[in-house]
Amino acid sequence: MESSVLMLLNKISFTPLNLGRKRAAPAAWPRTGRRASAHPISQKMYVPGFGEKSPEAKAAINIHDFFTYIAVRIVLAQLESYNTEAHQELMEFVDRTSLNDGDKFCADLMRESPRHKTLAMRILEVRSSYCKEDFEWDNMQRLAAQLVDESNKKLMREYLLETSDIEKGK
Amino acid sequence: MESSVLMLLNKISFTPLNLGRKRAAPAAWPRTGRRASAHPISQKMYVPGFGEKSPEAKAAINIHDFFTYIAVRIVLAQLESYNTEAHQELMEFVDRTSLNDGDKFCADLMRESPRHKTLAMRILEVRSSYCKEDFEWDNMQRLAAQLVDESNKKLMREYLLETSDIEKGK
Repeated sequence: MESSVLMLLNKISFTPLNLGRKRAAPAAWPRTGRRASAHPISQKMYVPGFGEKSPEAKAAINIHDFFTYIAVRIVLAQLESYNTEAHQELMEFVDRTSLNDGDKFCADLMRESPRHKTLAMRILEVRSSYCKEDFEWDNMQRLAAQLVDESNKKLMREYLLETSDIEKGK
Repeated sequence: MESSVLMLLNKISFTPLNLGRKRAAPAAWPRTGRRASAHPISQKMYVPGFGEKSPEAKAAINIHDFFTYIAVRIVLAQLESYNTEAHQELMEFVDRTSLNDGDKFCADLMRESPRHKTLAMRILEVRSSYCKEDFEWDNMQRLAAQLVDESNKKLMREYLLETSDIEKGK
């Protein structure tokens, strides 16, 4: 049964996507635009509701906070073996401060004490280094493309298995 | 006063980063490793606590959910002008379903009704297209690098302005 589902998966034809719309296009949908689009992939889909910020800018803000979180973990791991006192101080601060907003976390850490300020400066430097030198951007892009393929297949496969079971049960 | 703060900013020297540690290094810190590292940037910082998944994989999962969110917005905008009924149905579903887990959202949408299933299939296709064709990965990388520079400068500048005010007030 599973192999027939997989065969079915390969046969699925999607409704053609309407990609004939540039990001800066007006809100109304030009019917002619749909037919005129001979190369649908060459133009970008309109992403509404992002105000002045693009999706890329929103994603950059998000990953910036993620880099702060990573920088804190890196600094904690570094301190653990050669400066246990500083490690403990940073650990205590992390326990009672949210890391959701990376910049606010660093600003608060700077103002905690002169020792904490040194730690904050180190975190600022580590997150910059990590963003520019260490993080494998191409790898993330590759993994995201892989993930979307795998997830889409998985979702359709599970749905088809489920519905074909229901039909069999009838 | 502000210009002197800026001059001071340029003079700030950071504690040198310890980058002489590969990602797969053991938990203990080899003291010799610190001295031996002649090209600190060429080796990657050890990021602890990511288990089997790399930071890149975690970031890919995160951006995958973001792409589902974007795909929903794209499909909603597309439906708004040429299929108001489907637009309303999707809107109602979005209002009562969390989009934090993109895959779960799509799985639930598929099972809502055959009409919702068609919408889900469209969202799956849009998020794949958006990930592979539309999203400007290089742009996000550039913006993230710019953001870390600007945020670090802003944080240090605000701290210095604040502390120099305190010193003046004494």
